[in-house]
Amino acid sequence: MIPQQLISRKRDGLALAPDELRAFLRGYVAGEVAEYQMAAFLMAVVFQGLSDPELSELLDVMVSSGAVLDWPGLDRPVVDKHSTGGVGDKVSLALAPLLAEVGFAVPMISGRGLGHTGGTLDKLEALPGFRTALPLDEFNRIVRKLGLGMIGQTAEIAPLDRRLYDLRNVTGTVPVPPLMATSIMSKKMAEGLDALLLDVKVGSGAFLPDPGAARRLAELMVRLGEGRGIRTVALLTAMDRPLGETVGNALETREALDCLRGGGPGDLRELVLRQAAELVLAAEPGASGPDGLRAAMARAEEVLDSGRPMERFLRLVEAQGGDPVAVESGAWFTRAPVVDVLEASEAGTVTGVEPRGLGEAVVAMGGGRTALDQEIDARVGFRVLATPGQVLQRGQALVEIHAASPEGAELGREAAEKSIAVAPGGAGSGEALPLVVERIGA
Amino acid sequence: MIPQQLISRKRDGLALAPDELRAFLRGYVAGEVAEYQMAAFLMAVVFQGLSDPELSELLDVMVSSGAVLDWPGLDRPVVDKHSTGGVGDKVSLALAPLLAEVGFAVPMISGRGLGHTGGTLDKLEALPGFRTALPLDEFNRIVRKLGLGMIGQTAEIAPLDRRLYDLRNVTGTVPVPPLMATSIMSKKMAEGLDALLLDVKVGSGAFLPDPGAARRLAELMVRLGEGRGIRTVALLTAMDRPLGETVGNALETREALDCLRGGGPGDLRELVLRQAAELVLAAEPGASGPDGLRAAMARAEEVLDSGRPMERFLRLVEAQGGDPVAVESGAWFTRAPVVDVLEASEAGTVTGVEPRGLGEAVVAMGGGRTALDQEIDARVGFRVLATPGQVLQRGQALVEIHAASPEGAELGREAAEKSIAVAPGGAGSGEALPLVVERIGA
Repeated sequence: MIPQQLISRKRDGLALAPDELRAFLRGYVAGEVAEYQMAAFLMAVVFQGLSDPELSELLDVMVSSGAVLDWPGLDRPVVDKHSTGGVGDKVSLALAPLLAEVGFAVPMISGRGLGHTGGTLDKLEALPGFRTALPLDEFNRIVRKLGLGMIGQTAEIAPLDRRLYDLRNVTGTVPVPPLMATSIMSKKMAEGLDALLLDVKVGSGAFLPDPGAARRLAELMVRLGEGRGIRTVALLTAMDRPLGETVGNALETREALDCLRGGGPGDLRELVLRQAAELVLAAEPGASGPDGLRAAMARAEEVLDSGRPMERFLRLVEAQGGDPVAVESGAWFTRAPVVDVLEASEAGTVTGVEPRGLGEAVVAMGGGRTALDQEIDARVGFRVLATPGQVLQRGQALVEIHAASPEGAELGREAAEKSIAVAPGGAGSGEALPLVVERIGA
Repeated sequence: MIPQQLISRKRDGLALAPDELRAFLRGYVAGEVAEYQMAAFLMAVVFQGLSDPELSELLDVMVSSGAVLDWPGLDRPVVDKHSTGGVGDKVSLALAPLLAEVGFAVPMISGRGLGHTGGTLDKLEALPGFRTALPLDEFNRIVRKLGLGMIGQTAEIAPLDRRLYDLRNVTGTVPVPPLMATSIMSKKMAEGLDALLLDVKVGSGAFLPDPGAARRLAELMVRLGEGRGIRTVALLTAMDRPLGETVGNALETREALDCLRGGGPGDLRELVLRQAAELVLAAEPGASGPDGLRAAMARAEEVLDSGRPMERFLRLVEAQGGDPVAVESGAWFTRAPVVDVLEASEAGTVTGVEPRGLGEAVVAMGGGRTALDQEIDARVGFRVLATPGQVLQRGQALVEIHAASPEGAELGREAAEKSIAVAPGGAGSGEALPLVVERIGA
């Protein structure tokens, strides 16, 4: 195996045999293929793509580079979800306990905030004491006992993915569908799942704003999952505006807890229920089509409104080092010291709520990272009251800015002003994406 | 300057501002941009190319990364040629002394054999004692005294090119016209030239066999040279068969000496005279067009046949450590121990003499390198008597194989058999390229 010959073939659009690609990848793991050779290969993939056998081989080598969980003797289907990342997306926090209560095991391995988007780990860590770094055996015990566990990627899970991810991050090879697909799926494959729901964001606040590119990514991941016997469904969902009302870690966690109590914003509740229902359909073959979906949604709704998912989440908080009493009472939540409100300067109609600038502002205000291992301030963020299509009175509250300092408040106000577009008159928006744009299944 | 942002912009086909590209390149020189980032950038260039301002900036940074020769007080135009590499191309050895005798200074910095092609340095070193590694100040003195000098690239000349070249070699980014163009031109720019002749090979034995790709490379280099005030002319020349009769270092050097004595194969003599004439026209504005070219060719022919270029070459041999008496008498030449002859098995017409396999066989027989700094055997190679279109009698000699061992002779015979294509009957070839396919000037 001569690395530059394989790179040249990929460059020229010729397929590599699976055993050639395997030798190249294992050579990289073993240090015989250099970082610069892998970087050139990844950039060639940007332009020439990967064939299905190549994708499959890459995924296999990534998964087998680390530990793969399995669940012998577990009497419930093992399921999980993954989101490609959005602004205000706190679905996982409500969905995981709901799924556990519906009857699944949910070994959820999540990430931190990336770029302008938030991450499930950062939201969980807004709860004082909650530990997201657990050894795999402790994680395993918690999932078996409570039906769910929520941790971060460990060094044991798909270490080749970690190396490739870090390399892609510094070589301009991040938004590349085949590389995104294998990176996401390698971590999910390692969880030992029976079914997987993929939430692929589209719209201006998504990593792949273009619906065509998002659809290709979704299709790739569905093929990869199904090819390994995992029932895999993807939803393309709206990220042309934030999901729910809040952006920022503690605010979002509080909103997810509201959802677990049967409240919270309608779009958040709808997406949580839809994702749960899709997993019910995927993991329990038989029911399908619109009737099956309606029935599964109704079942998920009944479980959510029973209050039992909230109780289960409190047991998870306790198991992972947090304070369930404080979480239940709301005493865990610390208000940001500076709160400002942006109001409508004129009457009109909201024509857009741009998510990207709000997400970037949360990072700038201290609520996200600009360097690895940076401490973040969970308190800062936005409560966005304006929604696309809403008719406004002059002086109506549009955005609450929660800041840790006057400078942060200033940054936040600027971002809020830029993000909200208002047109005079009472015309409806018409431009906003439906919450679920498309469903892609096997 | 954030390297991955610049790489991403190139990946997406957006132009970089000259100062951004400069910062990226200087960051690489300074060790702030990693090899893997440069590798990803170079692969993005394969697909997105470089704009003229980007090419110009890359070339400037490469040239200014090292020493640039200048020739204050020299009363003759400074010229050189560069070949993109072929099989049997020994033009430089005859051309440089001819140009010096015509009235130019020729500071020729050449390379070694690369892949299946030979290199001028290896041919010079077939002459016992000839030193091609000289300090720049000694090289400078020799060029000023004799009108020519012939050395290899030193660490002082375009060190950024050397690093990029080594990186390209192991990352599948070698046959990329904008990268080839800047690599070649950076070394030539550093010679402080007034005029430059580029011999861009086309046909199956060339690095860029496709005439379209070769033409683009030639046009790029002409633009880059002219943009810096160097009169630059490119000839696309035939590499669908070897140039001249011989392939292999000592055999080729002897053939070049024959040419310097007014003899040697017709195609070699023609290409030497044509290249000399193009440089006369480029360096001495006034004469141009077919009449100018005819006059310049006649002048070069007269000088070549005077015997003075041979005398000048002998003085160069002496100045660079060789033995001019042995070179003049032919005593320097050591015959290879095993000589075999491939003969025509049937009467017919030669339809092709494939150069690549012959070049590869010379390497395999010990006459080229498969690892850096390998010792090579200058004696091995081929004398190819068959030429495309030639009508053959049964038993007629096609190829002489000069080998250092019976195993080498076996390899050589196999390669010779494969390289020569013969069709029954007396039909002409019709397929061979003209010696000079195209001329590309400003």
